Amino acid sequence: MSFSLSGKSIIGFGRGVGVEAAYSGVNPLTGKTLEPVYVGALESEVARAGDLAASAFLSYSVLSPRKRAGFLRAVAMHIEALGGDLVERMMAETALASGRVEGERARTCGQLRMFADLIEDGSWADVRIETARPDRAPLPKPDMRSMLIPSGPVVVFCAGNFPLAFSVAGGDVASALAAGCPVIVNAHSGHPGTAELVGLAVVAAARETGMPEGVFSLLYGADYGVGQALVRHPAVRGVGFTGSRAGGTALMAVAAARPVPIPVYAEMSSVNPIFILPHALRERWGAIATGLHGAVTGGAGQFCTKPGVIFVTAGKEADQFVAKLGALINETPSCAMLNAGIAANYAQRRSRLGSMVTVQVVAEGGDQQAGVFLTTARAWRKNALLHEEVFGPSTLVVLCENDADLLLSAEALEGQLTATVHAEAADGDVARALVPVFARKAGRVIHNGFPTGLEVCHATVHGGPFPATSDGRTTSVGTSSITRWARAVCFQNMPATLLPAELQDGNPRKIWRMVNGERTPLPLV
Amino acid sequence: MSFSLSGKSIIGFGRGVGVEAAYSGVNPLTGKTLEPVYVGALESEVARAGDLAASAFLSYSVLSPRKRAGFLRAVAMHIEALGGDLVERMMAETALASGRVEGERARTCGQLRMFADLIEDGSWADVRIETARPDRAPLPKPDMRSMLIPSGPVVVFCAGNFPLAFSVAGGDVASALAAGCPVIVNAHSGHPGTAELVGLAVVAAARETGMPEGVFSLLYGADYGVGQALVRHPAVRGVGFTGSRAGGTALMAVAAARPVPIPVYAEMSSVNPIFILPHALRERWGAIATGLHGAVTGGAGQFCTKPGVIFVTAGKEADQFVAKLGALINETPSCAMLNAGIAANYAQRRSRLGSMVTVQVVAEGGDQQAGVFLTTARAWRKNALLHEEVFGPSTLVVLCENDADLLLSAEALEGQLTATVHAEAADGDVARALVPVFARKAGRVIHNGFPTGLEVCHATVHGGPFPATSDGRTTSVGTSSITRWARAVCFQNMPATLLPAELQDGNPRKIWRMVNGERTPLPLV
Repeated sequence: MSFSLSGKSIIGFGRGVGVEAAYSGVNPLTGKTLEPVYVGALESEVARAGDLAASAFLSYSVLSPRKRAGFLRAVAMHIEALGGDLVERMMAETALASGRVEGERARTCGQLRMFADLIEDGSWADVRIETARPDRAPLPKPDMRSMLIPSGPVVVFCAGNFPLAFSVAGGDVASALAAGCPVIVNAHSGHPGTAELVGLAVVAAARETGMPEGVFSLLYGADYGVGQALVRHPAVRGVGFTGSRAGGTALMAVAAARPVPIPVYAEMSSVNPIFILPHALRERWGAIATGLHGAVTGGAGQFCTKPGVIFVTAGKEADQFVAKLGALINETPSCAMLNAGIAANYAQRRSRLGSMVTVQVVAEGGDQQAGVFLTTARAWRKNALLHEEVFGPSTLVVLCENDADLLLSAEALEGQLTATVHAEAADGDVARALVPVFARKAGRVIHNGFPTGLEVCHATVHGGPFPATSDGRTTSVGTSSITRWARAVCFQNMPATLLPAELQDGNPRKIWRMVNGERTPLPLV
Repeated sequence: MSFSLSGKSIIGFGRGVGVEAAYSGVNPLTGKTLEPVYVGALESEVARAGDLAASAFLSYSVLSPRKRAGFLRAVAMHIEALGGDLVERMMAETALASGRVEGERARTCGQLRMFADLIEDGSWADVRIETARPDRAPLPKPDMRSMLIPSGPVVVFCAGNFPLAFSVAGGDVASALAAGCPVIVNAHSGHPGTAELVGLAVVAAARETGMPEGVFSLLYGADYGVGQALVRHPAVRGVGFTGSRAGGTALMAVAAARPVPIPVYAEMSSVNPIFILPHALRERWGAIATGLHGAVTGGAGQFCTKPGVIFVTAGKEADQFVAKLGALINETPSCAMLNAGIAANYAQRRSRLGSMVTVQVVAEGGDQQAGVFLTTARAWRKNALLHEEVFGPSTLVVLCENDADLLLSAEALEGQLTATVHAEAADGDVARALVPVFARKAGRVIHNGFPTGLEVCHATVHGGPFPATSDGRTTSVGTSSITRWARAVCFQNMPATLLPAELQDGNPRKIWRMVNGERTPLPLV
């Protein structure tokens, strides 16, 4: 490896010294510890990262979007320049295959460039202009101009299951940097070396493009203390998190208890229900079982969109469907999980599921890793434990008695990231009843597909009502996610010399604006 | 009065019986109790209002915008039909003058019609469509279509200082009903009769336009119990509040402690700083004093945008300015406050201010009601008590030593609804330094004006960082406020028959949509 790792936090353009609690990366395939040792940031280093971010915010937040876009593109280039070193380290730390690592790297760099394009375009700022009418009676109308501006420094927690696309330079970091917010990243203990390599790439890009020190820091912590201290730093104005429900709700409590409470965008848990309606089951049970098997076992089931519960109407086709899914699961080769903690948690939840009296074990895979379980809708609705996410390659098939049972079960769902219906034209009535329920329960509603493999675009919604996320109003993926780090400000009767370019009469940014109620990219004068 | 008042809660289309703790309206001018007695809602009535709202949400949330708009317009008409009865009752309960009552009624009905127009137009839903590319490599691109949908039933607390425009059919209620969310209103003890009259108008409009029962309820409570129980109801998905910081933060805690936490939009307190830069002070000290006097004493200073702290550079002009402002305040006739609670709180805060050793009393009005106080920037920055809102007709002038002192003071501000700068061209450098600080601190930044008299339009931002509000990401006034009651949902590969009209190829709603990155009101095919 040509890039050397130090095991220290990155604080602004410098490195931490932290000598307290420490940990190392571990190869999940061999159980062997990887060099170097990662030392947790000191309290003083947390404070310094926050103070640097506060200071960087003053200049970074008003930097031209073109310069911020240049920074984002430089981050992507520096990540790509890590080449095989990054692939090798991430494979060693996570047991993920090279194809997955390379695909995730492509997505990560693609996201950075997508946000660079978005802010260069500039129309995301939702500019609204109402021009003055001094002669209006009884009162003159003032000139009012509003736009979205960055809200302040942001703390982002790396996700265990996306060491690149949701970590040091992942979705939340890219959208926050694009919005104009400095970011402090809290590394995940599952892939500290991957984090350091990407962190160094971000710092190199920041230096190269002349960004202020403090626009980015990366802190290690051997326990929750560093992350919680970051969320408590007075300069911080928002938090991004992807992980467990316990972790997310703990951060929500810390953020709400601050003297100045701040929003937490935590993506926490989802069972991503799939409803297979009777005609779809009859006509496509085999193909659906095959597709579902791929969605349940891909990435060892460690996706937040993995389908965890499948509703079908009991009968001959349901039996065939369950038998085929079970057979496919039984043939699934074992696959190492991301780390020992996830593996242990999965084993515990999977074994709890299998031991319930109302649950039948359909298949357990060659080495009891993957799993298909079976229960009835009545039992599922009665037992809240059956609604909980089992993070790993297993799924629960729920047998319903009829259409009414399917609908009752849909109403009993908690908030979800996704909800899917498989339907043929002849299933129309049930589908038409289900889709509005799904829209109330989930962030993304899918027809005749599977929820894994999320498309990253302008229309993406990766969010959903609690407990899928802490804040169902926004998305963590796609261009819309930039608004979670922004808030609107209105300028009243402000002369042009004091207005941001986005709000000036001539429309120098050439963006779409709402002017006196009409949408237009044209200048006012 | 031709409309008779019963003193009972309105629950769906029926009336409550609540026989527990009770209260009455009081005429602040005479101290006399007004008929009838208002009885607090029972626990069972709170539950029923929530259940009815949950049930109404199922049909109301998918009702055509045209029908919802018809309901909003009918509400406005029924409020207008209350005629003199409403004016008379509100004057008796609040001591507000008829002109103010009529103006507020016009604003209230104007807001209802503005939201009716907004949802008929339909473009607010932020539709984003990305069409499928089945031949894309390595993976086909799915069809993705997103839009904003209503989030669920909402609880709105009436504001003491806006018995119409921020109460039973005020801003938050109009925007929530427009978004597609049923509303349960918690009445304010300061104007229960006004609330009942408007509540009856809303119910009449709902019946007339065929809205589902539960789309609206109005609950009375003699203490905080009823409001907090409403916030705890499992069906509720959002809360709107305008009032004190103590009240707002209490509701934030209740909402965060729910099994499913929900957002609270609380507008709480703001001192609305005004910075008068040296050249503006020299050239316009007299005119600014006159304008400021109007902004401080209008409505007896009971506006959330009342200027509570004025920064000027010490010197001859500052002395003249303070003397003139003091003289105007001394000439100000006494004006009854909205209710005994507000009056007592004002007297207490005003007297605390006047008794501080670093504060000088400049003027106290004829009967010691209005007030101008004076301190130094150094003293102001040291004493957090001087940063607190004094709700009523008083203001604090802060003497700065120089431009640096002005800027330091701006940085020391908490979050505000508004921040104002008075500047001449020659003040350019200081103004250019101040405006970005104001943008960080406030929701609305005003140049050479006063913050009272908010314009209600597309560009309005009535919000701001904590503690001005609990959630600085949204506004409570203007068309943008509708988004606080909405969240995005994405439909993937959904056939046209299962898509909302807003997302269909033909664009039957003829709205502005983002299609494959381009903004257009045209159909796709």
